[in-house]
Amino acid sequence: MTARAFVPGHVTGFFSVHAHDDPVVAGSRGAGLALSDGVTVTVDPVETVGDGGVVLDGDSVEMPAVTGVVERLGTDARVVAETDLPISAGFGVSGACALGTALALDAATAGGHTERELVAVAHASEVEAGTGLGDVVGQARGGMPIRLDPGAPPRGYLDGLPARPDVEYVTFGGLDTAEVIGGDTETLSRAGEEALETLRTSPTVETFMRACRRFSREAGLQTDEVRAAIEDVQSVGGEAAMAMLGQTVFALDDGLSRAGYDARSCRVTAGATLVGE
Amino acid sequence: MTARAFVPGHVTGFFSVHAHDDPVVAGSRGAGLALSDGVTVTVDPVETVGDGGVVLDGDSVEMPAVTGVVERLGTDARVVAETDLPISAGFGVSGACALGTALALDAATAGGHTERELVAVAHASEVEAGTGLGDVVGQARGGMPIRLDPGAPPRGYLDGLPARPDVEYVTFGGLDTAEVIGGDTETLSRAGEEALETLRTSPTVETFMRACRRFSREAGLQTDEVRAAIEDVQSVGGEAAMAMLGQTVFALDDGLSRAGYDARSCRVTAGATLVGE
Repeated sequence: MTARAFVPGHVTGFFSVHAHDDPVVAGSRGAGLALSDGVTVTVDPVETVGDGGVVLDGDSVEMPAVTGVVERLGTDARVVAETDLPISAGFGVSGACALGTALALDAATAGGHTERELVAVAHASEVEAGTGLGDVVGQARGGMPIRLDPGAPPRGYLDGLPARPDVEYVTFGGLDTAEVIGGDTETLSRAGEEALETLRTSPTVETFMRACRRFSREAGLQTDEVRAAIEDVQSVGGEAAMAMLGQTVFALDDGLSRAGYDARSCRVTAGATLVGE
Repeated sequence: MTARAFVPGHVTGFFSVHAHDDPVVAGSRGAGLALSDGVTVTVDPVETVGDGGVVLDGDSVEMPAVTGVVERLGTDARVVAETDLPISAGFGVSGACALGTALALDAATAGGHTERELVAVAHASEVEAGTGLGDVVGQARGGMPIRLDPGAPPRGYLDGLPARPDVEYVTFGGLDTAEVIGGDTETLSRAGEEALETLRTSPTVETFMRACRRFSREAGLQTDEVRAAIEDVQSVGGEAAMAMLGQTVFALDDGLSRAGYDARSCRVTAGATLVGE
């Protein structure tokens, strides 16, 4: 029996790194958006270990976060993922594949895990793979998640902004998540903690966007193209910021289009869920 | 500025009552389903206290849970709620109106509350009104919520079953929630705690349905019509149980139709959300 899950894309606007030996406890604090552009993951359990693998948009790929989920759930599987999102550009595609695999593989095998257990499995696998620290829990929750605590359930307390804006995005290229979160993160984390404190004091979309912009500046992550696009959107009265971690700019409503960019449009959406075949 | 929210219906399958002087802390433990049949709540803030009120499906009604939300948020409002769900039949319509009012009124007034804060406001208002103990937190979360702890955020830890079955339901009449949860709840709560323990040991949809049936029997809540409908569904190989608190039977997939009932059909869905006008 195969099963299928849809996992929203997730853009982190700011974050701080919280390392821990236990990958369920490790993670990030921060805030972001779950996007209706996401990843559909179809899972087919296989009996012989080694018969599995991951196919992403038609290409056979290595995806350690997915391999980790399959190993933790103890059943090999063929995983087919399809997405319109850019890869390695700050949309949490690896986290989406990990979480989608956890949900669908559990369903396909009648594994009997709860949602929180499957989120923890996917989060731990993603952290071990070094490809993300907070996307999985944000993708599981949906909306505009505020990650008040690092880690996965039963840790990782989340809140959220109730707003559900339309979102546009444009990507100029990737950033290496493993390199950034594996390097010196002290400055970045200090900026992320300040951004979170700012958002908690005034939990609105406007404050979120402002905190994101300040974070990416202070963390020294903005490239020239990213900076220019953000300024272009602001110059037409829009709100834009940089996606962590990619050379990606996201804007509220039609801010990028109005600034003349060829942007993709989607909206803030609900969390990951099993879907019919 | 008006704003609008959609809140899923919520059927509780079993529960235990946890009283407390603080309505944010009081609540229930248990499990249920969030349904795509729900309540759309449109809120229009008004400046003069007393100009507000609640209109449900075209009729002006008293709804203390909504009044409580409006008072807590400190802005009077006109609240217009529309639903296809039966009223007072175990679908959490009052909780949906309270939560929808909290989300939409905050959006309409740029109130700057987080989702968890608005859930707590709606839960406390619903508990004080005596019309529900766990619907609001289940409706906020969506899916098949397992309420591991009573109360609202930051309390009220929830998990969920990942399954998203189609659901049918039929209603034979109402039950008075305030009468049941305000009366002697010792037997009911003992049965509810046992059902939760059973589900935690084996968190599957099948176990959930079995635990619901046992709970409604042991709590002495099944009416003759409810009992007959559940048995009719089982006799055609389906899964059915009773909704708390109403003379309502819900079934997985098309169980009620197959047993010859004129049932409404919907599906398990995501949690409450603001929607466009």
